[in-house]
Amino acid sequence: MVRLSPSRLHDSLRGPALGAVGFLNEVMSRYPDAISFAPGAPHPRFVDGLDVQRCVDRFLDHLVHDRGETPEQARLRLYEYGPSRGLINGLVSEALRRDEGIDAPPQALVVTVGAQEAMLLVLRALFRPEAGDVLAVTDPCFAGITGAAGVLGIPVTGVDETETGIDLEGLAAACHRARSAGRHLRACYVASDFSNPGGGRMSLADRQRLLELAEREDFLVLEDNTYGFTTERGQELPPLKALDTGGRVIHIGTFAKVCFPGARVGYVVADQPVAGRPGRLLADELAALKTVVTVNTPPLSQAVIGGLLLEHGGSLAALSRPKAELYRRNLAHLVSALDRTLTGRVAPGVSWNRPAGGFFVRMRLPVPADAALLEISAADYGVLWTPMAQFHLDDRGDHQLRLSCSYLDPDRIETGVRRLATFLDKEIGQ
Amino acid sequence: MVRLSPSRLHDSLRGPALGAVGFLNEVMSRYPDAISFAPGAPHPRFVDGLDVQRCVDRFLDHLVHDRGETPEQARLRLYEYGPSRGLINGLVSEALRRDEGIDAPPQALVVTVGAQEAMLLVLRALFRPEAGDVLAVTDPCFAGITGAAGVLGIPVTGVDETETGIDLEGLAAACHRARSAGRHLRACYVASDFSNPGGGRMSLADRQRLLELAEREDFLVLEDNTYGFTTERGQELPPLKALDTGGRVIHIGTFAKVCFPGARVGYVVADQPVAGRPGRLLADELAALKTVVTVNTPPLSQAVIGGLLLEHGGSLAALSRPKAELYRRNLAHLVSALDRTLTGRVAPGVSWNRPAGGFFVRMRLPVPADAALLEISAADYGVLWTPMAQFHLDDRGDHQLRLSCSYLDPDRIETGVRRLATFLDKEIGQ
Repeated sequence: MVRLSPSRLHDSLRGPALGAVGFLNEVMSRYPDAISFAPGAPHPRFVDGLDVQRCVDRFLDHLVHDRGETPEQARLRLYEYGPSRGLINGLVSEALRRDEGIDAPPQALVVTVGAQEAMLLVLRALFRPEAGDVLAVTDPCFAGITGAAGVLGIPVTGVDETETGIDLEGLAAACHRARSAGRHLRACYVASDFSNPGGGRMSLADRQRLLELAEREDFLVLEDNTYGFTTERGQELPPLKALDTGGRVIHIGTFAKVCFPGARVGYVVADQPVAGRPGRLLADELAALKTVVTVNTPPLSQAVIGGLLLEHGGSLAALSRPKAELYRRNLAHLVSALDRTLTGRVAPGVSWNRPAGGFFVRMRLPVPADAALLEISAADYGVLWTPMAQFHLDDRGDHQLRLSCSYLDPDRIETGVRRLATFLDKEIGQ
Repeated sequence: MVRLSPSRLHDSLRGPALGAVGFLNEVMSRYPDAISFAPGAPHPRFVDGLDVQRCVDRFLDHLVHDRGETPEQARLRLYEYGPSRGLINGLVSEALRRDEGIDAPPQALVVTVGAQEAMLLVLRALFRPEAGDVLAVTDPCFAGITGAAGVLGIPVTGVDETETGIDLEGLAAACHRARSAGRHLRACYVASDFSNPGGGRMSLADRQRLLELAEREDFLVLEDNTYGFTTERGQELPPLKALDTGGRVIHIGTFAKVCFPGARVGYVVADQPVAGRPGRLLADELAALKTVVTVNTPPLSQAVIGGLLLEHGGSLAALSRPKAELYRRNLAHLVSALDRTLTGRVAPGVSWNRPAGGFFVRMRLPVPADAALLEISAADYGVLWTPMAQFHLDDRGDHQLRLSCSYLDPDRIETGVRRLATFLDKEIGQ
């Protein structure tokens, strides 16, 4: 029996992301009774509102009545290969225009298998690592983007993120550093609202400054808008793409949180024209690339998401409102439980942030928050969390953990925080 | 407005595959009344048997009654992120064991977004282009594999395919050539039964010889089994993976043809152990890679496919039988119509093959079968086909076209062939 060289395979597992999900799932499966603050999973309450057939029928009805297809043509859409660009681009385009102030025509969108495929496609289309292209990411940062960059062999440089988002001076410095080394900072990944895991949020002024810097230093911005919907009502800020007059922003979104992750439907807005090819957009290039990654996003999934959008009058905001309220409640509950339960009780050197949105709280410990400590936390205290190391490019995450509150109810959050308090007390209290 | 450099983008469009699908769709959309022999689309008759809700319910029922889950747990499976390895691995593993003689446990499988994602994952896990790894493919060959190799920067070498499959002497020579150039032929892509577009089929003896050569020359075989199900009953040969005692074969399959393409569900059997990591298989590495490509295959799609399998007693053969019969009938009809209509009537230099399975017939012309000729065929004669150039690594496809018969009914095939005859008569008959 041939044995594959681990070195060759291991090369494909570069980047902190790869394998981390598997590791956490494995720990969770061994401690089914533990309260897990680990995954950013959706709240299970919303599964009750999901009637797949009803959503599909609503979408087919739309194809027939609004798009003039015959019932047979509409049904075939679910069955056949579809356009690699997507089936629901018109609905998504209209929702983005109305709810996010993003004015992009349907042909400037590609519907992807989650935001993850969008990231992979965009990186592959834009970067030539052999020509010195570098990707800047916030540090800490969503492990899916560094993982995708790793798979494509794209070098990554980190720029600090604080609670007000990416450090713009640090980003400017990264541009200069790249140039001095004969390289070019081709694009920068940011999540302007409540990043995972940092929880940072950029002010309107900083959003403008980021776009000016992108123009001045000639880079593109990959905006990940996954958690924007959790913003408190009345506090919304325009996404970078809505402010983008220079075509600097590629906007990536997902229905994983506002609808459900199992659909695996995301999208990318890529309205940049391709020089010398009249009428051709970056979205066309992404759609062509998609034909050799997944061919097209499952029409069935798109139909369900399309149906859910239609049921909410085509509005992302209406669709996401009940979820946003529950996740805000959960996050407030987690922060309050930490404040009430841990303040004054745990060792010096334990601290946590208090983000106003998103799914995640970060906690700093005076000891390494590693797999060994997680094992003790799970086995002896019945509480799980995510080591932050996987979200950092260097060792600065080694003493931090991430707590997610999205899929728990308040009583479980309360009990989980009490277990966490006991764990911190006994294991690192001295 | 920033304009993206076409050269950079164009680099991402290397390989003949990219853009070809878009081009054909565009031509087809301009000539809606033409009879199209272009796409390998499924026959629309089978959409009538597809009841999404019934399939999903059947799968959920299986999770509850056969796997001991609660109804709530089962429903959540559709809603949540799932394991990147897949949800229906047990069903697929059992079907492959029973119907194909492939003995691989569920954990040796990864369920992918179509066969296309499987190809991308396998290539990325196995190849290090910088270390001199080369991929061999049959020539002509499915454009999805060369497209995926192009996206990953993997060099490709072609080996002739005849009606008896890949030229084994040519393959041995390619191994030697690579070695002489300081490179290594890491893997070879073949479709042992009725390849797209070649229509070749390997004998049992040649299958054994290919495996011996793989052992001797130390390469892996990527087996694409998309069209095996169209084999006439009683004429089945074991797939390469069923003959593979040395762990040389990675087997890729899809439900696109035996169920429906819109589901976007494929799979890969990768049971090769990873040296020095006890218990770890290539499938584990592929599943880890998948977390940064699509995260997981949509559970809804998997549930529909799982439900269809269960409705057919878990048998791929039972599931595919009605489709296999229809596609064989169509192919026989196409070949017979060509023989009846064209023989003796068209110019010397026009010839076609007569495969016993698959979806495709190839035709050779004495003139280039290019986009310009396709335009004439569509506009003036109302018949469409696929230029073969996209399936070849060199210019040997330039005078060939591919005819697909999968989604047409016999009367349309008949009319289409008559139009083709007139087209050939008038345009290249002189």
